[in-house]
Amino acid sequence: MVELTFSGAEPLGSQALATLTLRAETEGHSVEAAGFYAGNGLYKVRILPPAAGDYRYTVSGCVSAEGVFTVETGPEQPIRARDGHFFDGEGRPFFPVGTTVYALIHQPDELVEQTLGSLAASPFNKVRLCVFPKHYSYNSAEPPVFPFEKDAAGRWDVHRPCFAFWDRLERILLRLKAMGIQADLILFHPYDRWGFASMRQEEHLVYLDYLLRRLAAMPGLWWSLANEYDLCGAKSLADWQEIETFVAEHDPYRHLLSNHNCFAFWDAGRPAVTHASLQAKTASLMPEWKARFPGKPVILDECCYEGTLPEAWGCLSGRELTARFWRACTCGGYCTHGETFFPTDGEPVWWAQGGVLRGESVPRIAFLREVFLELLKQYGPLEPVLDSLTKALLCPGLWPDDLVAELRAEGKLSLAEAIAPMPPEDRRRFAENERRFMGRHGDDALLIYYDQRCCVHDTLTLPKGGRYRVDLMDTWAMTRETLTADARGVFTLSLPGREGMAVLATRQGRAAPAKA
Amino acid sequence: MVELTFSGAEPLGSQALATLTLRAETEGHSVEAAGFYAGNGLYKVRILPPAAGDYRYTVSGCVSAEGVFTVETGPEQPIRARDGHFFDGEGRPFFPVGTTVYALIHQPDELVEQTLGSLAASPFNKVRLCVFPKHYSYNSAEPPVFPFEKDAAGRWDVHRPCFAFWDRLERILLRLKAMGIQADLILFHPYDRWGFASMRQEEHLVYLDYLLRRLAAMPGLWWSLANEYDLCGAKSLADWQEIETFVAEHDPYRHLLSNHNCFAFWDAGRPAVTHASLQAKTASLMPEWKARFPGKPVILDECCYEGTLPEAWGCLSGRELTARFWRACTCGGYCTHGETFFPTDGEPVWWAQGGVLRGESVPRIAFLREVFLELLKQYGPLEPVLDSLTKALLCPGLWPDDLVAELRAEGKLSLAEAIAPMPPEDRRRFAENERRFMGRHGDDALLIYYDQRCCVHDTLTLPKGGRYRVDLMDTWAMTRETLTADARGVFTLSLPGREGMAVLATRQGRAAPAKA
Repeated sequence: MVELTFSGAEPLGSQALATLTLRAETEGHSVEAAGFYAGNGLYKVRILPPAAGDYRYTVSGCVSAEGVFTVETGPEQPIRARDGHFFDGEGRPFFPVGTTVYALIHQPDELVEQTLGSLAASPFNKVRLCVFPKHYSYNSAEPPVFPFEKDAAGRWDVHRPCFAFWDRLERILLRLKAMGIQADLILFHPYDRWGFASMRQEEHLVYLDYLLRRLAAMPGLWWSLANEYDLCGAKSLADWQEIETFVAEHDPYRHLLSNHNCFAFWDAGRPAVTHASLQAKTASLMPEWKARFPGKPVILDECCYEGTLPEAWGCLSGRELTARFWRACTCGGYCTHGETFFPTDGEPVWWAQGGVLRGESVPRIAFLREVFLELLKQYGPLEPVLDSLTKALLCPGLWPDDLVAELRAEGKLSLAEAIAPMPPEDRRRFAENERRFMGRHGDDALLIYYDQRCCVHDTLTLPKGGRYRVDLMDTWAMTRETLTADARGVFTLSLPGREGMAVLATRQGRAAPAKA
Repeated sequence: MVELTFSGAEPLGSQALATLTLRAETEGHSVEAAGFYAGNGLYKVRILPPAAGDYRYTVSGCVSAEGVFTVETGPEQPIRARDGHFFDGEGRPFFPVGTTVYALIHQPDELVEQTLGSLAASPFNKVRLCVFPKHYSYNSAEPPVFPFEKDAAGRWDVHRPCFAFWDRLERILLRLKAMGIQADLILFHPYDRWGFASMRQEEHLVYLDYLLRRLAAMPGLWWSLANEYDLCGAKSLADWQEIETFVAEHDPYRHLLSNHNCFAFWDAGRPAVTHASLQAKTASLMPEWKARFPGKPVILDECCYEGTLPEAWGCLSGRELTARFWRACTCGGYCTHGETFFPTDGEPVWWAQGGVLRGESVPRIAFLREVFLELLKQYGPLEPVLDSLTKALLCPGLWPDDLVAELRAEGKLSLAEAIAPMPPEDRRRFAENERRFMGRHGDDALLIYYDQRCCVHDTLTLPKGGRYRVDLMDTWAMTRETLTADARGVFTLSLPGREGMAVLATRQGRAAPAKA
């Protein structure tokens, strides 16, 4: 990110809307960007330049200036979504492993430092965090600083940004970026006692306008329009659509953009939405969600948290949260962590304030991440595989010919014919609860997560003609052993008869690194 | 059960349909019953007499006779279903705790003895077992004896019962009865290589006619029309309805009657069906099932088995099967056990053949049974309790006024208003996966099963005016401790922060024993 700073007169009207336009050119490339007022008579313009080179620029608007700046290295592009998965600026698969610290930036400096230290030592490369302070159970402290100043009547004035707030936010975002952690920045949320959630839509658009000019050139950012958009009582569906369009149109770098629900999923099929960011408890439904939003990656961004709170969303065992990660990721989705241990002695609760990670799922998520990073590097992302009977159960009408052929080939056609009289919801439940978690990357990699199944053996049907290495993993004990490097066709393997096992079969002898 | 035996000439035509009619009278009671040919020139009539007394009888039909028999004690009536629960002949709540040994009667004597010994030492008071032999994975041995003789062409002749088979079946049923175990007798099933499943409907009605005259007077019997009726390819819906009617009409004692599915539930709302005998994996849906079949008890008669088989239905951990029992029973339902450990050395698999119980769920099911027996004895059966948000999610249309009032009283109305845009299946999934398992007996008893929730405390809202004992149970460690005998109103309790906990609050000071 290139940042140019200019001195000028303090804006006479809105400080938030005070802007300046930079036009810059180098050989073969030109750039135009809007700047912002940063306080103290300083104006800034931030850009992600398209290439290395010497850029001649002119600035107009609140400030007039011209000059040259030099970009030493090529740009770091934001993460992109494509074909149901994420890719970095080099086109390499990116595997987001998120956690949640909603009110990270609203904590005292010392706690922020401790949290950043915890993150640095963690498997997480994405964190969900809010711009606005959060008022909720276990998290009601006053933040050190707010995004806006107040007017004479004591009301928040979106036209007067509180520069200390924005500088602090950016310092934290840059620290995260330096640690390789994507900031999934939540622009709105309903848990508010200060009045930010109930401001008028016009005020919110001013806030967004300023925020986007300040932050959009940061490469490690994702836009999460809201946490639980559907609980923001002051906003209509049209308001959200306007916000979605506004953010997409005012972000020259097209960061990832999603909108996170409490109850009703936001329609991730909309063109400006890059991926589905879902709250849901049933990680087993990943194949259905991927089918609902074709081509869009799906992140289970809230599936309850590991902890000991009385609330239903905050008392999972480490084992269950680990299992939810495996269910989602095996089927080609992604999952997000959070930790909510009851603060017996008033200690911070990770999911809101950060602090220290102490859940049992964290090392297991690190193990999962290692498995997937290797898989992505050597092969590529997974797509869900449904067995024929599950497909028959989920199919709303007549089965297509290829499904009938598949059922017949597997000797399940007469069994499947008994499905017809089931009410649609019973069919879905049956399919959801009998599911075998499987994902594959073409014929190169097949992953099976056994979840609660305590089998002592199983049979894999490997694609014809291939030779496969078969690795057995215990997702809880975090062990991995190669059972054979020469499995072919129908292969029977021994399993230890306990929960949480996974088997990965990878094609040997002709794997090529994944590329863009 | 009274059995009268008469000698007579061997029937000339069908041995199965050869019958005799007994009419008997004592003061204030009269009885009429049909008998059957038992082989060797012997005819029998079995009755469950309505009361103690000296009965004068006459017999006509294949045999003519008259005389007197004496009944010393009042009758033991079969278990009855009423108001969504089971009751014994004295009107006391009966708590069925079933297991599954499908091919029990088709095993060698020594194994049958071993199995009966295992059952005697187990918590089970109901066993699902088949009349016809079963051919399936892990269970393909030839049975010692078949229900019918073959004709000259080698085809089964339903008109010629194999008396050795029926005598053996009855010996086992009487042994079970003596042990206090209900026999949930499965009249048909699809897993067959001998031709029993594909006989014509007329032949099956002859089989039922004979079976009902032989067995209906046994008090410890339940009729399960089928295991997985919907996989019996030779039968239509009309065939099943005819069978249902036939069994109900030919059973003078109206034993419990159900029909068990693989995919589509049999309509337990039909008048002749006494209870729902479901195959399903989601014990959490018990409240919906109870609502679907109002007034009928619901038994989750197959929810997968504890074991180590590769098949999805046969590899639950003991922990998960225990949890399914608690989910179902807390919400006023019932659950059935089965065990399917892979037969590494050819040992019997409990679910089909019996043998030795070795699963970890068995002692935990015994613990659950003790808890429920005490609860039933002191108070009565449970009804499911859904929280207001779950009710709002499950309600298909506009919320009734009382639900709106409940949501408002709990401060959840504005939260609930965000539900409206959810598609119905997303609503149901949300409700199913956020569920808190609660059951109550009026204001006298409240049971909460915390399942996967690892809370360190929770708040109970107890009915106004009552004083409650609160017991904390660990359903896995099988411990129970009384936290207080004097809880009132809103009561906060400590929990140990691990899975599988349950809390029972029972009203003190005015509990009366449950009665008919």
